[in-house]
Amino acid sequence: MLRFLVNGREAEHVAADDRGLAYGDGLFETMLARGGRIALWPRHFARLAAGCQRLRLPAPDRSLLEREVAKLTAGWKECVVRLTITRGPGAAGYRVEAARPATRILAAREVPRVPRRVDEAGIAVAISDVRLGEQPLLAGIKHLNRLEQVLARTIDPDAPELLMLDAAGRIVGASAANAFLMVGGELVTPAVERCGVAGVARAVLVERLGAITRDVPVAQLESATEVFLSNAVRGIVPVASIGDRRYGVGPAALAARAALDSEGFEPPRVE
Amino acid sequence: MLRFLVNGREAEHVAADDRGLAYGDGLFETMLARGGRIALWPRHFARLAAGCQRLRLPAPDRSLLEREVAKLTAGWKECVVRLTITRGPGAAGYRVEAARPATRILAAREVPRVPRRVDEAGIAVAISDVRLGEQPLLAGIKHLNRLEQVLARTIDPDAPELLMLDAAGRIVGASAANAFLMVGGELVTPAVERCGVAGVARAVLVERLGAITRDVPVAQLESATEVFLSNAVRGIVPVASIGDRRYGVGPAALAARAALDSEGFEPPRVE
Repeated sequence: MLRFLVNGREAEHVAADDRGLAYGDGLFETMLARGGRIALWPRHFARLAAGCQRLRLPAPDRSLLEREVAKLTAGWKECVVRLTITRGPGAAGYRVEAARPATRILAAREVPRVPRRVDEAGIAVAISDVRLGEQPLLAGIKHLNRLEQVLARTIDPDAPELLMLDAAGRIVGASAANAFLMVGGELVTPAVERCGVAGVARAVLVERLGAITRDVPVAQLESATEVFLSNAVRGIVPVASIGDRRYGVGPAALAARAALDSEGFEPPRVE
Repeated sequence: MLRFLVNGREAEHVAADDRGLAYGDGLFETMLARGGRIALWPRHFARLAAGCQRLRLPAPDRSLLEREVAKLTAGWKECVVRLTITRGPGAAGYRVEAARPATRILAAREVPRVPRRVDEAGIAVAISDVRLGEQPLLAGIKHLNRLEQVLARTIDPDAPELLMLDAAGRIVGASAANAFLMVGGELVTPAVERCGVAGVARAVLVERLGAITRDVPVAQLESATEVFLSNAVRGIVPVASIGDRRYGVGPAALAARAALDSEGFEPPRVE
């Protein structure tokens, strides 16, 4: 089941010349909603606003979004909400025509089920052959130019998740999550200044657990004692294995779950 | 004026969960149509098909597209046609669900006017501060992930065109055109294996004029005796200046126009 609000109205369509479609000219947030409220909402909105500033888009009105989320999710106990902001219609060239109204799309869908074994034992992660390109001007924000991730997933459709590296062999993150490693007794997560997305769950762990953001060469998977992924819908997903290397669910993943819990994030129900 | 065919039907909208909008998951061609026929059509279709192969999208039916172009452009003497192909609806994750029908959007709009002085004297080009990231898996094809170009244009809205470099300071092309330089008596155009788009007008000049594709450090603008841009709608646009450096309209640009003419390309009317 799927439900949309486009610019505040129930609608299932957007203009065929929307710049989001023409050029990927916009941003999105994928969020977990419960009882009409978005988990980690202040962090989602802050990242969206930072992305708008980077792309020179007007930031949407926060209280308007909150009212629309309440309207969209009315009647759902829990759901995934995707918010997309684009530069609006007008795609006769890359140049931005002044005073175009942005497009605001809210979509709600059911929360994917999390099998108990995933929650308890973690997932097997493969390393994608798709290396992420470096673009500091777009790194960190959650923009709509996601062909690298689509390509990775198209080449490897069956892996539960994919670890993605940059051209120099540094870990950037998973295709749709951030990655954390326990290395030498420290919790580290890759820097996202050259590529990758600065996840909102990741921000919680950096702030609350003091996780260190730095370059993480892929070879450090060998010495890592624990690896897990963070995602604002799924929460913390332990990594059971990457290729031949095996990991267990350890204290770092449990501390990460507690950190998210302390900001009111309750993960999807396990089945 | 603007007119659309979406999956063959007159419509001005696409599904709000189209993957073209969600992830920039698709390709496009911007083409010049006259009397219901697309200039350089075999080359446009070949590039589109190559892009589909790269993105693992099914290639659209060529004769279907030809019939739709004829229907779309009926009544227009000349127009710009943008063809967009996306992986279709279904944006609950990067993973591609099997057997989704692609989305096919044809849009026609009026041809922008070309002032006589542009045609005769060329344009002033600025060098963008936005450096293009390297992604060999996406280089050359005309995919929908165009935030770098949008950002360049947003930062520099007033320059007639922008020259774009990669992180190493090599020329890649203009924001919406390929670049050609006369250097040491040779016609050269930047290689597009790491970033950039392999334009269809560019391909004509490489084949018919023997233009050399290679790395072109930005410093070679100093020794260039002539610089021009190629674009499948505008044709050949001479460059009058880049920053302080001035150029004239020379024999290479005229030869390039003749090469396009020999493939039936007639540029937009000058006014």
